[in-house]
Amino acid sequence: MIVVMSPSATKKNIDNVIKKLESLHLRTHLSEGEDRTIVGVIGDKKIIANLEMEMMAGVEKTVRITEKYKLVSRDFHPLDTVIDVDGVKIGGDELVVMAGPCSVESYEQLHAAAEAVKNAGAKILRGGAYKPRTSPYDFQGLGEEGLKLLRQVADEFGMKVVTEIVDREDIELVEKYADILQVGARNMQNFQMLKALGKSSKPIMLKRGLSATISEWLNAAEYIMVGGNENVIFCERGIRTYETYTRNTLDLSAVAAIKELSHLPIIVDPSHGTGRRSMIAPMSKAGIAAGADGLMIEVHPHPEVALSDGNQSLTPEDFKILMSNLNEIAKAVGKKI
Amino acid sequence: MIVVMSPSATKKNIDNVIKKLESLHLRTHLSEGEDRTIVGVIGDKKIIANLEMEMMAGVEKTVRITEKYKLVSRDFHPLDTVIDVDGVKIGGDELVVMAGPCSVESYEQLHAAAEAVKNAGAKILRGGAYKPRTSPYDFQGLGEEGLKLLRQVADEFGMKVVTEIVDREDIELVEKYADILQVGARNMQNFQMLKALGKSSKPIMLKRGLSATISEWLNAAEYIMVGGNENVIFCERGIRTYETYTRNTLDLSAVAAIKELSHLPIIVDPSHGTGRRSMIAPMSKAGIAAGADGLMIEVHPHPEVALSDGNQSLTPEDFKILMSNLNEIAKAVGKKI
Amino acid sequence: MIVVMSPSATKKNIDNVIKKLESLHLRTHLSEGEDRTIVGVIGDKKIIANLEMEMMAGVEKTVRITEKYKLVSRDFHPLDTVIDVDGVKIGGDELVVMAGPCSVESYEQLHAAAEAVKNAGAKILRGGAYKPRTSPYDFQGLGEEGLKLLRQVADEFGMKVVTEIVDREDIELVEKYADILQVGARNMQNFQMLKALGKSSKPIMLKRGLSATISEWLNAAEYIMVGGNENVIFCERGIRTYETYTRNTLDLSAVAAIKELSHLPIIVDPSHGTGRRSMIAPMSKAGIAAGADGLMIEVHPHPEVALSDGNQSLTPEDFKILMSNLNEIAKAVGKKI
Amino acid sequence: MIVVMSPSATKKNIDNVIKKLESLHLRTHLSEGEDRTIVGVIGDKKIIANLEMEMMAGVEKTVRITEKYKLVSRDFHPLDTVIDVDGVKIGGDELVVMAGPCSVESYEQLHAAAEAVKNAGAKILRGGAYKPRTSPYDFQGLGEEGLKLLRQVADEFGMKVVTEIVDREDIELVEKYADILQVGARNMQNFQMLKALGKSSKPIMLKRGLSATISEWLNAAEYIMVGGNENVIFCERGIRTYETYTRNTLDLSAVAAIKELSHLPIIVDPSHGTGRRSMIAPMSKAGIAAGADGLMIEVHPHPEVALSDGNQSLTPEDFKILMSNLNEIAKAVGKKI
Repeated sequence: MIVVMSPSATKKNIDNVIKKLESLHLRTHLSEGEDRTIVGVIGDKKIIANLEMEMMAGVEKTVRITEKYKLVSRDFHPLDTVIDVDGVKIGGDELVVMAGPCSVESYEQLHAAAEAVKNAGAKILRGGAYKPRTSPYDFQGLGEEGLKLLRQVADEFGMKVVTEIVDREDIELVEKYADILQVGARNMQNFQMLKALGKSSKPIMLKRGLSATISEWLNAAEYIMVGGNENVIFCERGIRTYETYTRNTLDLSAVAAIKELSHLPIIVDPSHGTGRRSMIAPMSKAGIAAGADGLMIEVHPHPEVALSDGNQSLTPEDFKILMSNLNEIAKAVGKKI
Repeated sequence: MIVVMSPSATKKNIDNVIKKLESLHLRTHLSEGEDRTIVGVIGDKKIIANLEMEMMAGVEKTVRITEKYKLVSRDFHPLDTVIDVDGVKIGGDELVVMAGPCSVESYEQLHAAAEAVKNAGAKILRGGAYKPRTSPYDFQGLGEEGLKLLRQVADEFGMKVVTEIVDREDIELVEKYADILQVGARNMQNFQMLKALGKSSKPIMLKRGLSATISEWLNAAEYIMVGGNENVIFCERGIRTYETYTRNTLDLSAVAAIKELSHLPIIVDPSHGTGRRSMIAPMSKAGIAAGADGLMIEVHPHPEVALSDGNQSLTPEDFKILMSNLNEIAKAVGKKI
Repeated sequence: MIVVMSPSATKKNIDNVIKKLESLHLRTHLSEGEDRTIVGVIGDKKIIANLEMEMMAGVEKTVRITEKYKLVSRDFHPLDTVIDVDGVKIGGDELVVMAGPCSVESYEQLHAAAEAVKNAGAKILRGGAYKPRTSPYDFQGLGEEGLKLLRQVADEFGMKVVTEIVDREDIELVEKYADILQVGARNMQNFQMLKALGKSSKPIMLKRGLSATISEWLNAAEYIMVGGNENVIFCERGIRTYETYTRNTLDLSAVAAIKELSHLPIIVDPSHGTGRRSMIAPMSKAGIAAGADGLMIEVHPHPEVALSDGNQSLTPEDFKILMSNLNEIAKAVGKKI
Repeated sequence: MIVVMSPSATKKNIDNVIKKLESLHLRTHLSEGEDRTIVGVIGDKKIIANLEMEMMAGVEKTVRITEKYKLVSRDFHPLDTVIDVDGVKIGGDELVVMAGPCSVESYEQLHAAAEAVKNAGAKILRGGAYKPRTSPYDFQGLGEEGLKLLRQVADEFGMKVVTEIVDREDIELVEKYADILQVGARNMQNFQMLKALGKSSKPIMLKRGLSATISEWLNAAEYIMVGGNENVIFCERGIRTYETYTRNTLDLSAVAAIKELSHLPIIVDPSHGTGRRSMIAPMSKAGIAAGADGLMIEVHPHPEVALSDGNQSLTPEDFKILMSNLNEIAKAVGKKI
């Protein structure tokens, strides 16, 4: 940490800052410029992490040099982590596609969707059994019934299941049916849930919060890893900006950022990321080109009657075309699908 | 709802839209312009609320006319709601000030803070026992021990207690000690917790999410009210923008917006809203002038040694000066403090 | 400036950084932590201001300690600047209100508006002769004819004139008619125009850009002051955020920020800041309570037939009521109106 | 346009609205729901475009159905526009790459950069002669001397020149030296300059404003086209968001949006879009995969001594590698480079 003293700070102010830091067994290093003195702080990182110096007389501001996360950092784990979901690998040379309806509605709907996406090359079936909805009057999902359908249909097609968990108390139940537990954008900083997921034996897919910074996102993953669960997959799903043409602004530079800062895999969700069916194909290609390890795409056999998010779902036909196009992009970045 | 057909929509497209709407027992109303046809949809609001028409051939977009929330709306309850917290009224002519440290650290710290804020005119003691922190390595609060201290110290000074709840499972425990349960910004759309708080007998203070729209905030309150708990207090605490000089951007127009759209009270938190001690006083005055029903302010007897958020806490002396200044502003808007 | 070396930087990398800095006659100061070395840079500020070190091998990032602006800074000019607009003072104890229609439409419209606002206490007449409009098909203003009307009507009522300038070439012409030249939000970083306004003898009102940071805004004012024109008035008019209920998000904490960082006056424009007539009164009060030196408010004799921005204009009656209410708020913060 | 009456609107309110619309020779269409009446407005689009109804008693809000731009719209011009810059085509099957230094600094620098980018496949040389800089104390460019160097060096290598224009008065001068005139982000809504560029015979590259919506961007292009200049190229260069890891947030969904809404070409600038050298390659690939017609990339022979933006410039070696990788991506989307 660096403590920047204000131009008007007195010698006494500076001495007090040094005295406080030394009382915490931290070392200091003074740099005196023309206008102001700057105090470098060296020592136990955990103490520095909790330091708040801005209230002391004469202090203008402080600058943190190091991020607080460790386990998620590529500095501590230079090689890419590959997560093995019961045979399906996420984070390696082979791209993984998760597809299926926004909400599980019925056996027929899910079966039709699964058949279509499996045939087109998807290995993981997605579908919401518990839906976080803005209004209490919106469809909230089928609950455990939806989980059972997901497992049953996925097994019929030899697929894995990813589904969202919206409450800490549901973890045990969802673990019985799903292969990957998804943390939604609205729960990215539900720290009690993250801590509980740190004890789960299942991989966690952590969606980026609606207005989460890259740093906050990495720290949220750190909550899971520090609990003992090392299998975290990031999912970029768009951030909130002033633009209204798209539902969110898909931030593909986050893919490059996560790849630089962390060893964990990251996938892209162009359905929620754009909210527009016509944009799913170009943004899927762009996500792969940016270096993502896979995609999550909403596919509904009849999007026009979907109970949620129909306007950001592909039809089975469109999905099939997209998958064959993705193959070329994957090859161009040295991967396969 | 209004369905806007694209200029290239065929007669068949339009007929199909009408047929679908009529199959749901909705009435339609056509308006044919030069370029395009617009279909007005009339009927059962619950059905309309879940309608998704954008996927149908020929549909360009839909426009929703009505918001989904009802119980929170001033349309359904024209008079201001005044919430009675065991004798302390929130939402009426008298402004309420909630003050105290960010985190409860010790009896001595809390006692000193409570004594100072009570003497200056605050009626409600704030303090965090469970702290949602970005990093798992940050101080997470004293837990139940902190709750006990809050109750004990508040009782010594005849104050009420407001404290944050970060997990659905803690509700019963926190209800034993606190008079108002606070939902933090990161949990504003933790819908399972909101539903559970709908069953609580305690008033709920609902902070605005980091990037929540006014509409989403009102819908979050609707989740609580629809469960049966009618005592919801909004708290504006700043939204996330591109500006970095302040920690958040305090949106005081939200005070005016909530007063227009809802009958529920709203208070302002200038500590989190700005993240800068020097801005607490001007933003407190501005909040009251904008029509807020009260304030939540962090006060720490020794902000320079605070375990969290010291740089956005007032000293007892500054708080005392602020309270006397607020009196004049309150009078100017026809209220007292 | 502080240069933060990456944990993997070699001794050679560090030596090269020092060598480069010393070749520019800058002094360096090393601080060696456990993980990394930090290099403090001291010397000629103009050289440091243009320094870019991030490309050198081993450099992780740089941190700038000082802002580049000087003349606008309170550090260099501790006392408040009071600008004298031909007898009307801006920045002192007396609040100034600028009011009038969004666009000048006709003599009758402007005369009616001016009479109303003058009688209610406004001293400066506002009105657009050149209108920056999103679409080329929107009304673009009356041009010089509008300027003449502004001058004529203002003189009839003994008022001063403020009007927007949208092109560098118009400066001379507008100076003939107006007392204050306004730079609109879209031109806040039209640096050629700012440079030209630095040579003007008229005070400049500099609106904040749609998404300008406080720092960029201060630097824009520095462009004007460095040219020799010391009379700059800031005007907060709302920033662009994700919220759609309001046209912009009025950032009243910017008032407190400008007061801390600069000696120049700042006024608030709640009409553009909110885009909603019902919010003008509460936000005007809040702006004054936050410490603003005045207000700019749109008033139209018949807002329902305005050629632009009718929905954010007050009627003369509403304006009169607001002005009398503002008096109380002004007194509460030690000012008068 | 649709006028939504409030639930409390009286019959008289509705009659007045209809009367006003009919007085403007517009036709109306009533749709009466349970709670409220909705008035559809049909007729002359130019009149409707300027209509403001929100101030009339009983009106809750209005909804605009059609955008105001026409000439830029794909509705009016379904086929892609291909712009011919003296033999170099932009908008067709062949991708175009514009590359060179941020600022023109010297003949040697520009020559080295041009040689490198030409050999790697770039056809258009970029370089700033007039630099819009946040601070008046930053390097402002070489001016006409820089323009001359651009032309001279481009001619040596058989390249075209694109350079930024920062003032309306410079148009004639810049036209003498450059093949494409660039409008920077800060001038996207400098409407006087856009109007003047509508009279230019040179193609215009219009960068997206820092916080411009897609709709505002299209309207800005309409200003140029309505003046008679049909050769407009969009350039996505990142928007301002809360994220600080990147300099801006590159919005690649804007590429897909522009392709849907307009017939004009669009290129991507990953240098300004991210502000980080390490992200230029992945974001270039992603931009092409998203459907962009080309790229603009900063390349500096010695980025570590650049006078501006060194940390977002590629070295000639990195650029060469990127260009060969782009070839594969281009093929995957049916294009060549």
